[in-house]
Amino acid sequence: MPPVKGVRMAAARAGVRYKDRTDLLLMTFEPGTTAAGVLTKSKCASAPVDWCREALPHGAARACIVNSGNANAFTGKAGKDAIDKVAAALQDKLSCQAHDLYMASTGVIGEPLPPAPILAQIDTIVAAQDADAWEAAAAAIMTTDTFPKGATRTAKIDDATVTINGIAKGSGMIAPDMATMLAFVATDASIPPDVLQTLLMMSVRDSFNAITVDGDTSTSDTVLMFATGRGEKHEAVRRAADPRLKDFREALDAVMLDLAHQIVRDGEGATKFVAITVKGAETAHAARRIAMSIANSPLVKTAIAGEDPNWGRIVMAVGKAGEAADRDRIAVRIAGYPVAKNGEVDPAYNEPVVARAMRRTEIEIEVDVGVGRARSTVWTCDLTHAYIDINADYRS
Amino acid sequence: MPPVKGVRMAAARAGVRYKDRTDLLLMTFEPGTTAAGVLTKSKCASAPVDWCREALPHGAARACIVNSGNANAFTGKAGKDAIDKVAAALQDKLSCQAHDLYMASTGVIGEPLPPAPILAQIDTIVAAQDADAWEAAAAAIMTTDTFPKGATRTAKIDDATVTINGIAKGSGMIAPDMATMLAFVATDASIPPDVLQTLLMMSVRDSFNAITVDGDTSTSDTVLMFATGRGEKHEAVRRAADPRLKDFREALDAVMLDLAHQIVRDGEGATKFVAITVKGAETAHAARRIAMSIANSPLVKTAIAGEDPNWGRIVMAVGKAGEAADRDRIAVRIAGYPVAKNGEVDPAYNEPVVARAMRRTEIEIEVDVGVGRARSTVWTCDLTHAYIDINADYRS
Repeated sequence: MPPVKGVRMAAARAGVRYKDRTDLLLMTFEPGTTAAGVLTKSKCASAPVDWCREALPHGAARACIVNSGNANAFTGKAGKDAIDKVAAALQDKLSCQAHDLYMASTGVIGEPLPPAPILAQIDTIVAAQDADAWEAAAAAIMTTDTFPKGATRTAKIDDATVTINGIAKGSGMIAPDMATMLAFVATDASIPPDVLQTLLMMSVRDSFNAITVDGDTSTSDTVLMFATGRGEKHEAVRRAADPRLKDFREALDAVMLDLAHQIVRDGEGATKFVAITVKGAETAHAARRIAMSIANSPLVKTAIAGEDPNWGRIVMAVGKAGEAADRDRIAVRIAGYPVAKNGEVDPAYNEPVVARAMRRTEIEIEVDVGVGRARSTVWTCDLTHAYIDINADYRS
Repeated sequence: MPPVKGVRMAAARAGVRYKDRTDLLLMTFEPGTTAAGVLTKSKCASAPVDWCREALPHGAARACIVNSGNANAFTGKAGKDAIDKVAAALQDKLSCQAHDLYMASTGVIGEPLPPAPILAQIDTIVAAQDADAWEAAAAAIMTTDTFPKGATRTAKIDDATVTINGIAKGSGMIAPDMATMLAFVATDASIPPDVLQTLLMMSVRDSFNAITVDGDTSTSDTVLMFATGRGEKHEAVRRAADPRLKDFREALDAVMLDLAHQIVRDGEGATKFVAITVKGAETAHAARRIAMSIANSPLVKTAIAGEDPNWGRIVMAVGKAGEAADRDRIAVRIAGYPVAKNGEVDPAYNEPVVARAMRRTEIEIEVDVGVGRARSTVWTCDLTHAYIDINADYRS
């Protein structure tokens, strides 16, 4: 990944929980950097999510610190105290204000986060700031992830070429609700905070909010975006709908979707990447709900793991979603092949052919629910023995 | 299980899908038997569910036929035709009307149900009707169940002693929504159909509607109840709230809860029976939603399988339920031991003791969400490798 002008970063080994790997990331931003964020809707949000919620209205950012191994969620006053200590040390070191700082933590929930190992690394990690450390940054925020996740695009705003970089982590407890696991996106474009916030929220809807691994929504879901304004100069932009941002919006959507797909591909225990499209729904919201009902069904997900084109379970999941669907007009296609239409098996259905297609690692399921014109696509993975192994291990 | 006066039954081997076992049940009722039923809310309900929905308003029953191995769901016109053929044969043989017949099917979804094997058994199964065949009846309706499920109680109405028998099947695709998998309850009490319907709906709420195995709601959920009025004579009852029905209501609730618990104990792959109580919620509905969010969380269920008192995942599931909860007042008890209070680890928490308690096969989880006085209990099981084995098998 290329550098983004105005952004530097470094990873360090604080040893909060993991040994022999980096578990701390500090990103720093040039003065004038704007910030936007989308946070979990969980009623039990983590302490760093609370912190970000207070900082975001100020719209500015000078630094973002992230630790892996401990989510600092459900940690009560001790959790808030730990954050305040880290923030005080960073404010002092970077000569900035509290609301210029962003924080995120990921890992085990319910255990106090000890601030000491993080505080001990502040001097080192500030001194090590480097523009060319995106891969190291992505690696430092991993938990059960099996590979670091990053994406990059360039876009034109007028004649200026700007860069958008993003990193993300996430593998289990993935069912984002207006937010997702940790993702950090930075651009060197110059975007006011209100515009940046709108662009980010629009982009989250069909990327991070359209994926699920296990239907479990994290306490710590956080997507933060920073715009440094230190890239090629362009005229000021004042609203998200500005046609001059078309290329930027598309590039941002591409980065976000790329990161979201990487999270699904790295879903705990996943062997298949599954795209589920529901069409013919009454509204886009209904299409999304039906698609998520299919994507979260343990019976559909185990059938996919078993490479069984079990359309009956897909129909079951349509039925339980509670949204309008015409049972007698439902059509199902798997991997592009017709499976069912008009509420029963399609005469053209060729089970050996479809079963063979399900051996692929990427599978598309398309369901027409026969009541309207709205559609939605979500992405998920299969449910395998490895998911159980990863999560039934004592305090994984 | 004792006989219920006015009810006879027999099982037969139609060989619809399973060989070397019974897969067909016919129950017959004396004239004057009343009927009540609660059916799935699935938008893709099966053909027999449609049939029952039409018959129920008549409130009378002469027979109930059930097959296992094929759910006759998502089978279009062929599914309706199969039902009509079986109904015609039964009407002819039993000299009754269409709306005196009830039907249920359970098994694979999306494959046409061939009526011929069932029609071939009608003469035999009618001739074999016997008052003392409840165990055989429970066995005939099993699919992935590992044991037949039955429950019986007696109750007093005035001085009359009446009997309530129930059988059920269900092991996977269990997340009843105002109904459940198949359950059939019969009593020799004399109860008008509207009263019977009210009693049944009240009883379903905290029994079948309070269990979940995998969060997947069936296309075929059906609870039917029949009252023959052929037991000891009692004065007529005219409303469900009649204080003379107190003992009957309690006995009915006990039968229903017993059957519902048997389904959870036989949850696909289950090794633990888990009771989850949420208290301190704003409303009973909110308490139920939070409890179900915990009960359906794959991360909570795998932690229970791993015998890990991972309260962090319980709090995650509280957070994602979307109902009011005060993160900083949440308290969690596992197997009666304090784990968390006031939004953080309880100082009294003793991990080795709680981890040892989790080795039990019956585990209670109690969560106080700290915002009100409403409570709800639901029952679920753990998520194990065996669930994957059962459901990833080709067209299990």
